[in-house]
Amino acid sequence: MRIAIDAMGGDHSPDQIIQGALDALPSLESGDELILVGPESLLREKLGTDAVNNPLIKLHDAEEVISMDDSPVEAVRQKRKSSIVKMVKLAAANGADAIISAGNTGALVAAGVLMLKALPGVDRPGIAVHIPTAHGPFMLCDAGANVQPKPQHLLQYAVAASVYSQVLGHVASPRVGLLNIGAEPEKGTALVKDVRELMQRETDLNFVGFVEARDMFNKPCDVLITDGFTGNVVLKVIEGLGTSFMQIIKKQAKAAKPELLADLSGVLRAIECQYDHEEYGGAMLLGVQAMFMKVHGSAKARGICNAVKSVRDAGRHNINAQLVTRLAHLVAQ
Amino acid sequence: MRIAIDAMGGDHSPDQIIQGALDALPSLESGDELILVGPESLLREKLGTDAVNNPLIKLHDAEEVISMDDSPVEAVRQKRKSSIVKMVKLAAANGADAIISAGNTGALVAAGVLMLKALPGVDRPGIAVHIPTAHGPFMLCDAGANVQPKPQHLLQYAVAASVYSQVLGHVASPRVGLLNIGAEPEKGTALVKDVRELMQRETDLNFVGFVEARDMFNKPCDVLITDGFTGNVVLKVIEGLGTSFMQIIKKQAKAAKPELLADLSGVLRAIECQYDHEEYGGAMLLGVQAMFMKVHGSAKARGICNAVKSVRDAGRHNINAQLVTRLAHLVAQ
Repeated sequence: MRIAIDAMGGDHSPDQIIQGALDALPSLESGDELILVGPESLLREKLGTDAVNNPLIKLHDAEEVISMDDSPVEAVRQKRKSSIVKMVKLAAANGADAIISAGNTGALVAAGVLMLKALPGVDRPGIAVHIPTAHGPFMLCDAGANVQPKPQHLLQYAVAASVYSQVLGHVASPRVGLLNIGAEPEKGTALVKDVRELMQRETDLNFVGFVEARDMFNKPCDVLITDGFTGNVVLKVIEGLGTSFMQIIKKQAKAAKPELLADLSGVLRAIECQYDHEEYGGAMLLGVQAMFMKVHGSAKARGICNAVKSVRDAGRHNINAQLVTRLAHLVAQ
Repeated sequence: MRIAIDAMGGDHSPDQIIQGALDALPSLESGDELILVGPESLLREKLGTDAVNNPLIKLHDAEEVISMDDSPVEAVRQKRKSSIVKMVKLAAANGADAIISAGNTGALVAAGVLMLKALPGVDRPGIAVHIPTAHGPFMLCDAGANVQPKPQHLLQYAVAASVYSQVLGHVASPRVGLLNIGAEPEKGTALVKDVRELMQRETDLNFVGFVEARDMFNKPCDVLITDGFTGNVVLKVIEGLGTSFMQIIKKQAKAAKPELLADLSGVLRAIECQYDHEEYGGAMLLGVQAMFMKVHGSAKARGICNAVKSVRDAGRHNINAQLVTRLAHLVAQ
């Protein structure tokens, strides 16, 4: 398996990214490749001679870097030599089976949607993100790739997210929910009603029906399917409210009892870390020719090493081949 | 002006509701009516002879009560003699100019949508709710009445919510935002793009463009317009995340330092009160023949008295007539 890693993405690049890649080497087999993408001279210097000569490690030169603050679509258009664009291009040219980055999520997704081919049976790729809850995370898909989907697109996301949840998340039979404004069959738009019918017909899918946004944090499902407009709004409401909430609680705690704030800060930091929009456990682009994994912007060596192991493990289970097979057997296709 | 009040709705009904109505009497003029809706014998007993004989007070008999836990649509269908249904029916028969309730929001809205006539120029009524932020509340519309609106429906909501925000909220020139997944013109669905064009053409509207869900808690606008599906999801994500967040913070605070929880509880209660989904400052149904005001479920006499005064004030400003005039002057109509 050929795994490309954006050496220049995230808060702790390139050192922690490179360290994570090196730490993951023992989990690879002969014939596998870890392709580090970034300025070649810098990578050589950081890696040292032994690592540069390791047959498992390859370098792929990219002079530019897209920062966390760059405007995603513009950056992808303008920084053609950035590590993100060159990494995605490499996968598009079938030079990598999987790509991993801790960099700018928007730029990664934009590059992925623009450049990667869809798998057979996938009409439009979808973005899956992990939403943390007190009961563990669930996978929300689509989080913004496809804002006006057709019913079969959402069915494809349900299958794709189920396979990913099974293989990567080790959930035996992922429960699939469909986001709606009520649990009753007569509620919602024509789209959700049509998708519900499609999903009910697929016996391979563990479909649990409509899920209300209010209930999602009780984790009634492992995979929550929605259109990209609603999914993106959900993600950003969580993000905006989380930030706002933190500000309010700090302000009120300070006003009520100034010394409370110091005691609280550790607690709040832990929660912030769990709920931060950059910390959702990353995003995946489902249904494209390469495995596509965005990891935490704050990921250190351990996070990168784990991502490589996950991707390698999923590759051994032929995750995308499973996906294509499942899609080919859909009643609705 | 004839103002009907659901005497049986809310956590503190009927005593606090009746008290609030009595407290509001000095703000009324001869010819006005406060119509208390509920079991007549109970109302007579609670009011006492003086109040019963006050020419400003009328009673409207309703034997049944819809509780906060009743399923809204079913309750409206089955409890035809409930205070909510009889109050809305009274307005529908032109027996009241405004209705006020602290009862079951879903049932109120369902009754309003089913029974009340739309004002001239309004194709479909919309639900407006107040969303609290650290910078004061904004009005979100539509929060679930119209899940697949046409562009002109959203334009009508923008006008209606602007008029309500002006008259009831005393905002001189309410800034109107359109919820989208990005601020750039090319972002979003065909619906939001069409609505944006319509809104830009209306010079009477203080349209500030697309607003991202992430930013809404910074209050970039006084009125945020969206379709009823997205609006309802937004409302319920806020509700669900708020509850989940409170649980997590309590749990983590307890684990970190047990005595912290006691210090925190006052702070959290204050925030809960501000952010509780039942406490958003109520919901309004915009564009129907009567003013329609849902107040906090926990409203006491003061809240009811203030609601009566607001409604009375808005009536003196002919709020719905203003709305009809503004709609008649829309370029797009």
